[in-house]
Amino acid sequence: MKELTKYPLLQSINTPADLRKLPEKSLPQVCKELREFIIDSLANNPGHFASSLGSVELTVALHYVYSTPDDKIVWDVGHQAYGHKILTGRRERFHTNRKFGGIKPFPSPDESEYDSFVAGHASNSISAALGLSVSAKLQGSKEHVIAVIGDGSMSGGLAYEGLNNLSNTPNNLLVILNDNNMSIDKSVGGMSQVLISMHSSRIYNKVRYVIAKALRKVGILNERRANALIRFNNGLKAMLFRQQNFFEGMSARYFGPINGHDVHELVRMLRSIKDMTGPRMLHIHTVKGKGWEPAEKNATVWHQPGIFDVETGERIVAQGDSPRFQDVFGETLVELAKSDERIVGITPAMPTGCSMNKLMNEIPERFFDVGIAEGHAVTFSAGLAKGGALPFCNIYSSFMQRGYDNLIHDVALQRLDFVLCLDRAGIVGEDGPTHHGAFDLAYLRPIPNLTISSPYDECELRRLMYTAARPGAGTFVIRYPRGKGSLVDWRCRLETVEVGTGRLMKEGTDVALLTLGPLGKVMESVVSEAAEHGVSVAHYDMRFLKPIDTSILREVGEKFKYIITLEDGCVIGGLGSSVVEYMSENGYAPRIVTLGIPDKFVEHGTPNELYKVCGMDKESVLRAILKFKES
Amino acid sequence: MKELTKYPLLQSINTPADLRKLPEKSLPQVCKELREFIIDSLANNPGHFASSLGSVELTVALHYVYSTPDDKIVWDVGHQAYGHKILTGRRERFHTNRKFGGIKPFPSPDESEYDSFVAGHASNSISAALGLSVSAKLQGSKEHVIAVIGDGSMSGGLAYEGLNNLSNTPNNLLVILNDNNMSIDKSVGGMSQVLISMHSSRIYNKVRYVIAKALRKVGILNERRANALIRFNNGLKAMLFRQQNFFEGMSARYFGPINGHDVHELVRMLRSIKDMTGPRMLHIHTVKGKGWEPAEKNATVWHQPGIFDVETGERIVAQGDSPRFQDVFGETLVELAKSDERIVGITPAMPTGCSMNKLMNEIPERFFDVGIAEGHAVTFSAGLAKGGALPFCNIYSSFMQRGYDNLIHDVALQRLDFVLCLDRAGIVGEDGPTHHGAFDLAYLRPIPNLTISSPYDECELRRLMYTAARPGAGTFVIRYPRGKGSLVDWRCRLETVEVGTGRLMKEGTDVALLTLGPLGKVMESVVSEAAEHGVSVAHYDMRFLKPIDTSILREVGEKFKYIITLEDGCVIGGLGSSVVEYMSENGYAPRIVTLGIPDKFVEHGTPNELYKVCGMDKESVLRAILKFKES
Repeated sequence: MKELTKYPLLQSINTPADLRKLPEKSLPQVCKELREFIIDSLANNPGHFASSLGSVELTVALHYVYSTPDDKIVWDVGHQAYGHKILTGRRERFHTNRKFGGIKPFPSPDESEYDSFVAGHASNSISAALGLSVSAKLQGSKEHVIAVIGDGSMSGGLAYEGLNNLSNTPNNLLVILNDNNMSIDKSVGGMSQVLISMHSSRIYNKVRYVIAKALRKVGILNERRANALIRFNNGLKAMLFRQQNFFEGMSARYFGPINGHDVHELVRMLRSIKDMTGPRMLHIHTVKGKGWEPAEKNATVWHQPGIFDVETGERIVAQGDSPRFQDVFGETLVELAKSDERIVGITPAMPTGCSMNKLMNEIPERFFDVGIAEGHAVTFSAGLAKGGALPFCNIYSSFMQRGYDNLIHDVALQRLDFVLCLDRAGIVGEDGPTHHGAFDLAYLRPIPNLTISSPYDECELRRLMYTAARPGAGTFVIRYPRGKGSLVDWRCRLETVEVGTGRLMKEGTDVALLTLGPLGKVMESVVSEAAEHGVSVAHYDMRFLKPIDTSILREVGEKFKYIITLEDGCVIGGLGSSVVEYMSENGYAPRIVTLGIPDKFVEHGTPNELYKVCGMDKESVLRAILKFKES
Repeated sequence: MKELTKYPLLQSINTPADLRKLPEKSLPQVCKELREFIIDSLANNPGHFASSLGSVELTVALHYVYSTPDDKIVWDVGHQAYGHKILTGRRERFHTNRKFGGIKPFPSPDESEYDSFVAGHASNSISAALGLSVSAKLQGSKEHVIAVIGDGSMSGGLAYEGLNNLSNTPNNLLVILNDNNMSIDKSVGGMSQVLISMHSSRIYNKVRYVIAKALRKVGILNERRANALIRFNNGLKAMLFRQQNFFEGMSARYFGPINGHDVHELVRMLRSIKDMTGPRMLHIHTVKGKGWEPAEKNATVWHQPGIFDVETGERIVAQGDSPRFQDVFGETLVELAKSDERIVGITPAMPTGCSMNKLMNEIPERFFDVGIAEGHAVTFSAGLAKGGALPFCNIYSSFMQRGYDNLIHDVALQRLDFVLCLDRAGIVGEDGPTHHGAFDLAYLRPIPNLTISSPYDECELRRLMYTAARPGAGTFVIRYPRGKGSLVDWRCRLETVEVGTGRLMKEGTDVALLTLGPLGKVMESVVSEAAEHGVSVAHYDMRFLKPIDTSILREVGEKFKYIITLEDGCVIGGLGSSVVEYMSENGYAPRIVTLGIPDKFVEHGTPNELYKVCGMDKESVLRAILKFKES
């Protein structure tokens, strides 16, 4: 019942149609309630916080002016879309956001007709929305299509490819650039400079206001005259800016920048340009974390803050006893870089997420944040490597899908000394199907000249990094999961690992369990438990997918009639396939059970919930082991 | 000896150092000879023609002004780099260009120290050269790094990501934009408009000339003053252009446009800007095919014209009796589109290469050339599909590596009705390792919700396209090779194929041969020959990799002790793996030989030469079959 008093307007909005019934003067109150609802919800149920606070007014204005879901909003990434979810029928279930079986972490057409296109990976909104808009045009439909993209996503090549094609085809797409000069970490690169210079032009803003007023008068009544005005507006801007306006170069009409926290201004502007034809770009300025002071001050930390105290504004951080893999990576990279000046670090917009900020702070001149631009991250690193540096390029596994060609063409083909660290490999949990690092082992294995590895624990991560940094080590992939490892004291000595060798972790006689990566460590207790059930398991940590340890495989092929493989990746094409291929090629015919992510997109939930769904949890592995008795 | 009289200067240039000994006044003659040498060579030994003619003066000027190979030139794609090869010690072997064991088709550091970075896939030069330049800076080296990129390559997102990072890091990179308003087909999109508007600004060109003269006087002597001038220059340009100058927005100093066929002007400009610090962009205007009239008129045809008559200028086109797979695709697409108005065609800059120009001519409003932008091609098509259209998106297999994330994230996850046609799948021949479509089967198979197929012959291609176009067919991949098929009369009736079914092509008792794609057709004669040697081969055309025909696999598993799989793709992860996995999972233990592209990058040569290298030619397959007798 508290809800009813705290959110008097919001609780009446079950769909955007309800919002559109309200008088315009109520909108600031709706925004206020929506913002508070987001803060209250996120304090208890962690998620993407600061981005959604920054887009509250935009969200309300869009659903107020446009006839969603007939008109279509495409949210880029979807970090900004919590307000959108709450206004589109998901308010009451919003407490299940990101939970297993609950509201999905990112917009998804599977969940709601108001989610026009899948979101999760940055920079796809313009291309996708352009497709929707051209499709509508082909069918003679009058629907409006709006892409909402943050400035951080603008550094991705896909966004540019979309923009570059805006004027190529008849369409009525509106691209809204939600510009807070911030992606998860800060925006980098020339585009960011372009946007800053747009904001700082005060003369322009005054002129814009006059024009915007004129425009409103002309409005929809006489579109041709309005267009003429806009073109003048653009010409004027070209004169006023020392920095050039990129967007007009792309032949889209440009409006803005306007204050993205003035909901009335947004509504007026959207109404003015709503029924114009041709591609348009509206540039709005917002503050990431708007309305929650700690987030306004440090949006990076508050991007996804975990739970926090609404009264004090303090984040409630659980203190675990194990470090995260990313921390071990970050610390070890600094350690290695201090003793080897060839080493440089490259990240596409994830210095905090992959803990490369440690290198950034210690040796800033050998640290490169290239923005959301995975392809460039790989090819730029390849250039560094060709020039004699040793790049440690760290990319989240699922985002590495965007650097696939670069790895094949620019790195592997040249047999460069190059260390590719894939963080967030395997099941990532609450971020769901767009973010699971499911495919890397399978898509990497066919590439010639690659070494592919995954550490059993934090010490092994350090050893693999050390090994990868040896001169002549070639192109060396190290993949490890999100979250914590298992060891408290992980600062073991840096030692070389022999490339292509695994380890026998425990001897056994009945079943061979072959694991790759930290899931192996998790299964140690299962191996013990199996012994209690009378099944003796030999446990091997394969450590390398490629080159795979054929002496282990020979031994296993000769000794065992029953083999289980386990990997935190898709079961097609990875360790399981590799083991099966070896056995077939060498004339062994054991019974092989391959465990891993099955051939489907895995939804969101905690990692443990999802491992269970995939049959990769302890219980499932034990069950697979005990089946030996039946065989 | 004819050479000596025809190319008096060129024959004295064995390395660029020889070129640099010549007086500047000789350079036009060097250019003339170089151009003639290219024309004479290409007339007899086919290759990329028009691009290299357009860059003759630039190539000569670069090697004249810069101290190659200490200074590094990174050629984008490498279509432009024949002149570069001829000047850098490869003149006498140039007649072996693109031939098996001969000069490589694209620049490659494996071949020459003058080739600074691998080339082949468009748009990588800026990122790679930036890496080289930053690496030099870190090591305190004074070497110069120059990226040469064509305007067509500028539509690729990777080029933009590179540009966007130009000003982010201390470096002295020079990017030369070789602008001929032409990629293989014409350039498309907003960027192309930006470039056109730069050329057409006459006032600007006059002003530029004055500034360039002033600049030359100031030159290297006083760099700070020169920089001030340049900044003024830029400010001025911002005022003069109605269209904005994109490149300055990226915070790189911009020079040009200048005439790229005036070698003296090029030399002067390069000298002026050579020792400036910070990233710079030089914009030159060239004509693709310059100096060969037919190519100037139709650069698309003369991009890679095959052999031709130097006297008459006529292309010598062999008239075969089989159509190419691409033609069957192009014709069938039009046929399907005429009877199903949902169908649209999308190509990233290859309307001629994939024969989608047939659709372009017949139903232009449902044809979309998005420029070199594979990621956008896929995501834009996904938007079209989500909006109710049925996209046939055609991408060369090796270029599809750039749309990998898009296919997973924007298409497969949404289970869209979407037809992805991969032309140039498998061994492509003379274009070499960057262009072989080796990995597609392996990288596609792990993706959920995909149907993956490859036709046995032209009729099957038509049937698969027809099947893929049925409502609800989902995401449907059809991959087929470069070049010709086998049937003369390919206009068979359009019929549905049952998804996930293969076909028994010939009964047999000793060995089961499982093939995927047109290589199967090629092996029909081998199957007959094996019979003459007393081995009875059952030949199955699998047709689908996914879902794979398990009833065939069960039959084969039960009946045969000896199985051979053959696919025109990497042997890791594709059909072979799939068959091995099935047999293992179902408790069959036949001897399985998997034939396909081995785990290495395959060099260039004719397809037949390369199939032999890979053990995928008729002889090798026959040998594998006959080994049954020993087993």
